[in-house]
Amino acid sequence: MFDPVEAVKNYVRHPSVSTDPSFHDGMDGARRFVSDLIGSIGFGVETIETSRHPIVLAHREGRRDFPHVVIYGHYDVQPADPLELWTSPPFEPEVRDGCLYGRGVADNKGPQMVHIAAIARILEKDPDFPLRVTFLLEGEEEIGSPSFGRFLDNHQDLLAGDFTLLSDTMSPSSDRIAITTGLRGLVCLEVELTGPGSDLHSGVHGGAVRNPLQALAGICASLHDHDGRVNLPGFYDNVEAPGEWDREQLRKVELSTEDYAELLGVRTFHTVGGVPPMEATRFWPTLEFNGMGGGYQGEGSKTIIPSKAFVKISCRLVPTQVPAEIEALLVDTLKSRCPEGVEMEIKIGQAGAPYGVTPPAGVPVASGEPSVIDEAFTCAETAISEVFGHAPIYLREGGSIPIIPDLKRVCGMDSLMIGMFTPESNLHAPNENFHLGMFAKGIDVSERVLRGVSARGARGF
Amino acid sequence: MFDPVEAVKNYVRHPSVSTDPSFHDGMDGARRFVSDLIGSIGFGVETIETSRHPIVLAHREGRRDFPHVVIYGHYDVQPADPLELWTSPPFEPEVRDGCLYGRGVADNKGPQMVHIAAIARILEKDPDFPLRVTFLLEGEEEIGSPSFGRFLDNHQDLLAGDFTLLSDTMSPSSDRIAITTGLRGLVCLEVELTGPGSDLHSGVHGGAVRNPLQALAGICASLHDHDGRVNLPGFYDNVEAPGEWDREQLRKVELSTEDYAELLGVRTFHTVGGVPPMEATRFWPTLEFNGMGGGYQGEGSKTIIPSKAFVKISCRLVPTQVPAEIEALLVDTLKSRCPEGVEMEIKIGQAGAPYGVTPPAGVPVASGEPSVIDEAFTCAETAISEVFGHAPIYLREGGSIPIIPDLKRVCGMDSLMIGMFTPESNLHAPNENFHLGMFAKGIDVSERVLRGVSARGARGF
Repeated sequence: MFDPVEAVKNYVRHPSVSTDPSFHDGMDGARRFVSDLIGSIGFGVETIETSRHPIVLAHREGRRDFPHVVIYGHYDVQPADPLELWTSPPFEPEVRDGCLYGRGVADNKGPQMVHIAAIARILEKDPDFPLRVTFLLEGEEEIGSPSFGRFLDNHQDLLAGDFTLLSDTMSPSSDRIAITTGLRGLVCLEVELTGPGSDLHSGVHGGAVRNPLQALAGICASLHDHDGRVNLPGFYDNVEAPGEWDREQLRKVELSTEDYAELLGVRTFHTVGGVPPMEATRFWPTLEFNGMGGGYQGEGSKTIIPSKAFVKISCRLVPTQVPAEIEALLVDTLKSRCPEGVEMEIKIGQAGAPYGVTPPAGVPVASGEPSVIDEAFTCAETAISEVFGHAPIYLREGGSIPIIPDLKRVCGMDSLMIGMFTPESNLHAPNENFHLGMFAKGIDVSERVLRGVSARGARGF
Repeated sequence: MFDPVEAVKNYVRHPSVSTDPSFHDGMDGARRFVSDLIGSIGFGVETIETSRHPIVLAHREGRRDFPHVVIYGHYDVQPADPLELWTSPPFEPEVRDGCLYGRGVADNKGPQMVHIAAIARILEKDPDFPLRVTFLLEGEEEIGSPSFGRFLDNHQDLLAGDFTLLSDTMSPSSDRIAITTGLRGLVCLEVELTGPGSDLHSGVHGGAVRNPLQALAGICASLHDHDGRVNLPGFYDNVEAPGEWDREQLRKVELSTEDYAELLGVRTFHTVGGVPPMEATRFWPTLEFNGMGGGYQGEGSKTIIPSKAFVKISCRLVPTQVPAEIEALLVDTLKSRCPEGVEMEIKIGQAGAPYGVTPPAGVPVASGEPSVIDEAFTCAETAISEVFGHAPIYLREGGSIPIIPDLKRVCGMDSLMIGMFTPESNLHAPNENFHLGMFAKGIDVSERVLRGVSARGARGF
């Protein structure tokens, strides 16, 4: 059995930055490394080419009448810059104070190694372990998984599992583990306004034309009301406030409003209708301006009326909202609010569906025979309680993982998402790190979940 | 007598870009070139050091009881980039189709040479010409004349002239010459809003905090009403619509609304209360957004809530408005409209007073003995009518030349501004050019004005 920490280190040494073509060797190296590792513990590994970065699909058959679990992970990482803010080089992993530092240690090489190591340990002791397991490792997660939809359509049969197991979500801390029960969906677009044919002298021509930045400010300001609500007609039509069980789970997160404000570096929160911030980020949809620009960007002043202005907008959607409907609503509203004197062009960006799953703990009354995923949730609750000393917290997460609803839609699989990084892990930031105590316990939990699901025996248990 | 066209070419060969320290030699070269040229026709030349670029002050005494004219110009130029858009290199002047091309040919080396050549021609024929003439040539016009105020305070006595003569404004075309009767003032500032301590993941934290871009859009959108009026309380208190004589002058500009729209590359105009665009740019104050930014500026999407957002604002003011008052009004209003959850920082930028002068042509009834400046206006009207074949058009201009109101305030001098570039001259843009036919006629006009003022003899004529 390999050393899991050394394996993560070796994995991280391959700089697999998917967005930057100059990291081609790193992408290739990381993919080969993880393929070889999974192959070495008895999996048959296939590499599925895509238009950019191949998908690794590895299967171990087990017994055909046993449940089938698909373990998801991604071998690509975020860019490491700004490099000067790292204490140790991002692709030379280093342990400090019980954490492993390096780009990708937490997102997602460490957390995915939790499950690889758990399987390796099981198979070392029990080579005839009957559970059917497929690893699905993609290389385009950090660039929006552009090849994933097509891949799913073409490989539906290989992924006809009972549930997906993954660790690519957050836990409140290294000993309070979250099971993620929902993800927000995403709609992105960019608006470009064009006023005059070129930048104009604001003295010579100022007062004659509509300034596209002024038009942009007006349009953007119209998209929220004073109460922080998104001002698109019908935006909240299917949105429901969280129920009592969800609120109870939220209360278990030991993060005070003051500490959360300090973490974000704000003095006051600003939420829809004044709901608590932890609820706002998980249970309510948003419309955010991610970037805006136009005109002179340098030091001092340049007195022009710019020709163009742009804004990048994204909406986070809750499970009752439909991305295509919200996208159409947003486009129509933007067009209807474009004033005379400027032309509007809208570029549609990435989109992803929201996702929600109800674990048995969240169902007030047991509803008949548990499904495999119900069983997996129950095993996870028991394992996390025993290994970490606290029951898991069932939390929706504000972020989006579009492949999770895709796996549900195409392959019918729900996901068991066990959070294996924390707010201190510095995801997408310098000094990304992975808590090694949580890593070791996580392997135990994963082993117990897989053994638990397997222990219930053949299908129809 | 030197060849005026060759002189402009040699002047332009010195790349005197005042904003960029790497053009130090070009600044030095241009200053020496023009100093030597003026010295060679009989002026005593002084170089006044400033904190950045020296001012050239050159005087020829004439007869002490004769009027004293101060001729203003600037030897610095705008940067030439984007270089690839120039047909011929910007600092290698070239004549094509009756125009001289090069950076600074129109702004301001050519137009200032009009007056140098006129004086040279007069002195060649008439070495005892009694008019007192001072050249005042600065090197910081393109960076907002930061040293000029202090220079004026210290050299008030040397500049105690009867009027200023300059050509640094626009005429409608090379044969329809404008005399500029007013300039708008300027107030510039930059607003920076800070929300969270760093950029936040818009999924994980979206919905909890006020997005500074959203706050910025709201503040900016509040600064105009639907009618295009600036929405600052009291902004229009002293602003008056143009009178009948001013409107009559505007009608003489042979530029149709359609042609103006085509020139600006817009389909429709957007003016305060729907006034004609030519009136809006000259007689009404504005508030413009010159640049705005925050968050992700690259291709595609990056789903963040930015930490910071900024906007650069400038107001153009008409002669009845006071820059310090408008600046205070704008700052107070901005602060009062900053919502909770973001911090506002305001950096005050450059400012300049508006300016207005009433030529005798604009005074319905003659009011006693004409002053020297009245006489100069009358001479200019006659000279332009005879040389160009059309009477001058008296126009306010939408741009700002802060040194003109400064010369009025400190030295009591009004300015005779004769437009020697046109909308086709590409000021501050690639392929800047100077019409050589207008140049030759302009020298004639300048000679006639100077001779005319001198011909009225000693002070108190």
